[in-house]
Amino acid sequence: MKQSHLFTKTRKDAPADADSPNARLLTQAGFISQLAAGIYTYLPLGLRVLDKIKNIVREEMDALGAQEVLMPALHPKHLYDSTDRWDKIDVMFKLDGAGGKKYSLSSTAEEVVTPLVKEFVNSYKDLPVAVYQIQDKFRNEPRAKSGLLRGREFSMKDLYSFHADEADFLDFYEKAKVAYLNVYTRCGLDAVVTAASGGVFTEKHSHEFQVATDAGEDHIYIDRASGEVMNREIIPEEDWKNEEKYEIKKSIEVGNIFPLECRFSEAFKMKVPGADGKMVDIIMGCYGIGPSRVMGSIVEVHNDERGMIWPKSVAPFAVHLLSLSSKDEEVQNRIDNASEDLYQGLKDVGVEVLWDDRPGVSPGAKFGDADLIGLPLRLVISQKTLVDDSVEWKERTSTDMNLVKLSDIVASVDAWMEE
Amino acid sequence: MKQSHLFTKTRKDAPADADSPNARLLTQAGFISQLAAGIYTYLPLGLRVLDKIKNIVREEMDALGAQEVLMPALHPKHLYDSTDRWDKIDVMFKLDGAGGKKYSLSSTAEEVVTPLVKEFVNSYKDLPVAVYQIQDKFRNEPRAKSGLLRGREFSMKDLYSFHADEADFLDFYEKAKVAYLNVYTRCGLDAVVTAASGGVFTEKHSHEFQVATDAGEDHIYIDRASGEVMNREIIPEEDWKNEEKYEIKKSIEVGNIFPLECRFSEAFKMKVPGADGKMVDIIMGCYGIGPSRVMGSIVEVHNDERGMIWPKSVAPFAVHLLSLSSKDEEVQNRIDNASEDLYQGLKDVGVEVLWDDRPGVSPGAKFGDADLIGLPLRLVISQKTLVDDSVEWKERTSTDMNLVKLSDIVASVDAWMEE
Repeated sequence: MKQSHLFTKTRKDAPADADSPNARLLTQAGFISQLAAGIYTYLPLGLRVLDKIKNIVREEMDALGAQEVLMPALHPKHLYDSTDRWDKIDVMFKLDGAGGKKYSLSSTAEEVVTPLVKEFVNSYKDLPVAVYQIQDKFRNEPRAKSGLLRGREFSMKDLYSFHADEADFLDFYEKAKVAYLNVYTRCGLDAVVTAASGGVFTEKHSHEFQVATDAGEDHIYIDRASGEVMNREIIPEEDWKNEEKYEIKKSIEVGNIFPLECRFSEAFKMKVPGADGKMVDIIMGCYGIGPSRVMGSIVEVHNDERGMIWPKSVAPFAVHLLSLSSKDEEVQNRIDNASEDLYQGLKDVGVEVLWDDRPGVSPGAKFGDADLIGLPLRLVISQKTLVDDSVEWKERTSTDMNLVKLSDIVASVDAWMEE
Repeated sequence: MKQSHLFTKTRKDAPADADSPNARLLTQAGFISQLAAGIYTYLPLGLRVLDKIKNIVREEMDALGAQEVLMPALHPKHLYDSTDRWDKIDVMFKLDGAGGKKYSLSSTAEEVVTPLVKEFVNSYKDLPVAVYQIQDKFRNEPRAKSGLLRGREFSMKDLYSFHADEADFLDFYEKAKVAYLNVYTRCGLDAVVTAASGGVFTEKHSHEFQVATDAGEDHIYIDRASGEVMNREIIPEEDWKNEEKYEIKKSIEVGNIFPLECRFSEAFKMKVPGADGKMVDIIMGCYGIGPSRVMGSIVEVHNDERGMIWPKSVAPFAVHLLSLSSKDEEVQNRIDNASEDLYQGLKDVGVEVLWDDRPGVSPGAKFGDADLIGLPLRLVISQKTLVDDSVEWKERTSTDMNLVKLSDIVASVDAWMEE
């Protein structure tokens, strides 16, 4: 994409109310725009990142054998009569519709997915079933904060699994952990499985995925004896500062998975005949990961004083091609032609390029924007590089700069993409 | 995908409250599931169709030079103070949030996109700008009906364009018409541009895109003298049944585009310096097309007494591979092996296949499901076809059946895909 065509611009100053690196940097670079506290528009660069994260999540969920659906955001109230949660989910938005109808806005979807799957499952032979969706969720947060980390409207992948027995559930639950860790690794996040309280549905532990980082507001406790990782909920209060027993790290929660036992299948009277013909209870699990929260977390972890540092897998574009301006018209023509050729050459081999072709913008401003936007590979074409028939190559994670011949550059980038 | 893995099932009977072919067929075939009137879950087969339509729309919008964003569904009330529309949009859902905050749910997005684009446009040189999103919209319809045609929650692509002068707006408006017609053609719909009243913002006509079909609830009027197509709004009431003057056809509206003049740019004080330094008003247009409504319309137009008939471009899978059962174990093994090879062979060349591998399901039930689901090409492997080392080839739009050698079938399907 040509940067001259991109309708967004970077801004010099941080927004006054940005309370976190992700809110500040994503806004300054023109990835997101805040509409209200906890409510953001994804601009072209930001939407590309969000979509890439969603696709990584989708691939890992598909590999797990889960099937994608899309449930509505409007949930009729009567569904919550079955589970008695209408007044218990404290962050639920509620609204009135025509004809006295009452709805909530989706903050979770057990009340929708359970009767949905029940419709199609008649026997233990139809199990297991795992369905997921990637949908916007809503939470009436009293205090939204930290940019994409705690929003009122945010993207969520929620997966629900249904099993005829406990062993099958546990098998899937462990595979889901692995799929989740795959997602984080692919997104450039180093997450650990963290035991957490089971919440209201089970005496088992649930599990969170936590990324250790000084930017985090959560804490993980790593038992120095056993190596087990736990969140604060399940540590005795007197041990909260016990650094002899635990290695304590600041962290960000980037996902969680819960055993639901039969809480929802019972509420919706979902039983099926088992192998012996007797009716069996259906055991469920739920598994959540927020693509928008993952996006914010990546920025929290991967940034420096100059801007964001995107991993290749989720960067809006892999390459930022900068054409520097020259006052000499003939030189400018050579720069423009070499840039155009390189832009086309990279696109032809499937490399996504943002081409800073803006005329009359100073080199300093182009370099500053490139660092702020943080694409993994910066290529510069200028009067100086053309003396050697070359392009300047600089990766965002490194300070090294090299000249690569114009005749080799497409092949070099192509090889780098595969790394 | 193996049909044995698909968690949905077809159902024999139409749902009691299905009031239209699209609601009935999409539900019976397991593409959608109604949660409440006008509120549907997209099941795996249906979501694949919806996503394909969205991608066609996305490609045509990108080709138009528009840039994709994603705006929030929660709209703070104060935005509507600027336009005085809070109490004027009669189908708007409104809700109360924590701390006395009031929101509406997105039914349109002028109040969000205008201040958003204003942030980045400082001069006529930054224009034109065209931004779009594909987002779920909400309408508090007193009477939702006709399946995906009039829902309370539905998918919408809304595009907004911003121009420094009228000529530039008109140029874009005409190009948008062409892009819209491309979308419909690619989705297997034969739509016509239909003049409609301009609504409240302009004295110009707006334009609808109408698909002539007996299943429609709208009407288009084709002026027998001039050939101009109009909707009923702009026909004098005394001419509503004048078939001498007009050819009158039933139709479904599948999109509309509106000149907005300066209605919203004025409300949000969006003016920029023009080429001569004088401040100019910004002229806007808006352009809507609902992927879910398009999906419903395709079913209304393309079906027969046995089920749906999907165009290749939007079918959930291009090919339905049916393996018929045999009571002879050795024959069954040969059927299974030939089917598995063909399934893999087609996937290897990028053909999307739904493989009806369900054991113990009768041929009649498999044929019935295939007709109901309506994939474009049905391939059958049975004891009979294997006598000739062949596969039975039948397209959903034809009654012809041919045998194609197993050794040729992948190449034949690959060639058919390109047709």
